[in-house]
Amino acid sequence: MDYQSKFESLNLLLPPAPEPKGVYVPLLKDGHLVYLSGHLPVNSDGTLIRGKIGKDLDMEAGKIAAQQVGLNILSTLISNLGSLNRIKRVVKIFGMVNAIADFEKQPYVINGCSELLVEIFGRENGIGVRSALGVGSLPENVPVEIEAIFEIVQY
Amino acid sequence: MDYQSKFESLNLLLPPAPEPKGVYVPLLKDGHLVYLSGHLPVNSDGTLIRGKIGKDLDMEAGKIAAQQVGLNILSTLISNLGSLNRIKRVVKIFGMVNAIADFEKQPYVINGCSELLVEIFGRENGIGVRSALGVGSLPENVPVEIEAIFEIVQY
Amino acid sequence: MDYQSKFESLNLLLPPAPEPKGVYVPLLKDGHLVYLSGHLPVNSDGTLIRGKIGKDLDMEAGKIAAQQVGLNILSTLISNLGSLNRIKRVVKIFGMVNAIADFEKQPYVINGCSELLVEIFGRENGIGVRSALGVGSLPENVPVEIEAIFEIVQY
Repeated sequence: MDYQSKFESLNLLLPPAPEPKGVYVPLLKDGHLVYLSGHLPVNSDGTLIRGKIGKDLDMEAGKIAAQQVGLNILSTLISNLGSLNRIKRVVKIFGMVNAIADFEKQPYVINGCSELLVEIFGRENGIGVRSALGVGSLPENVPVEIEAIFEIVQY
Repeated sequence: MDYQSKFESLNLLLPPAPEPKGVYVPLLKDGHLVYLSGHLPVNSDGTLIRGKIGKDLDMEAGKIAAQQVGLNILSTLISNLGSLNRIKRVVKIFGMVNAIADFEKQPYVINGCSELLVEIFGRENGIGVRSALGVGSLPENVPVEIEAIFEIVQY
Repeated sequence: MDYQSKFESLNLLLPPAPEPKGVYVPLLKDGHLVYLSGHLPVNSDGTLIRGKIGKDLDMEAGKIAAQQVGLNILSTLISNLGSLNRIKRVVKIFGMVNAIADFEKQPYVINGCSELLVEIFGRENGIGVRSALGVGSLPENVPVEIEAIFEIVQY
């Protein structure tokens, strides 16, 4: 499947690929799986989307932030694997929503990322298992952090 | 081991197996492992147990909710694999407890699920690694969400 | 690589290895991977570091607690595998920080564990993927809980 062309046809702006920070890497390959670090909603200019859902942002803004996390994940995949055509399928999405204590729509927020992955990888390979939860706080007060596992094509 | 008969001998009421929702599946098979999405405490009539522990529910009610999440996990396993006899062992349980900020007994709550798994799969194969944590909020304000990894027998 | 000697040269005091509790084990081996349960900041005398970051503890104390969790993880590895020389590399660290709702420096806190792992396993093998998040509460009100995956050398 030509996922890279599909992605390019959508004309989405990618954020810059995360640099390996001091003590962790954005992606680690283990056989046929790639593990991704928790990714944040980085804009294409490198700034972060900030704010707690239910206090600073509503759930629509949260969903857009989750889509931006998805773009950041794609940026990491392309930067580390060379092309989205190396992806075989989505295995797992773990979606952390920075929300007030009575927020109940975490799945709606994380759909922002999941729907992007389905758009690119299709219903056959873009849908994996998922957890969506509300966390107490997140780095730099971002509204969403997502970690993921993908299966890759091995050469 | 005839886990399916063991389970049936307990006369526990299973909730209906979760339907694959739009953008995630309840279970994904990868070789000898099955990954399960975050499961919620669904009752056998399809309704959810709701409430935050330390505010709406006490920790005993939380433990019962975790057992109900365990039953929901079993429902997913049976529905997707055909029988609990496909299970080789529990690998990992990740237990998220929706509690007030000074709650300290997350392991006690998650035992509701862990003890159910030990009852069915025995001490040899029913005990894996585990994390228990308190989250800020959960979908539909349920008290517990649990994701899991199991090893399966491969044919 | 002689990680065990490197570790011993640092003269760090290890906490007692966690006992397998009733319904979970500290470590589970699955092929070339070992999964570790969520570990807590246990001191070498067996007591726990307690307190919420931003309320009872500052972020420097949190970082020290995360290092203590790292020592507890090493204790589990040595106790279950016999020696740190069985480790091939760090695959994944999942760092849960028990903090107030507006805390933003979870990565700084979790560095306490990550930097310890880099000191022992080096930059080549001591750096994996990572998530750092703020949780609402933790068992026994500890400030940090960390779960991990390591790759081992298979004999």
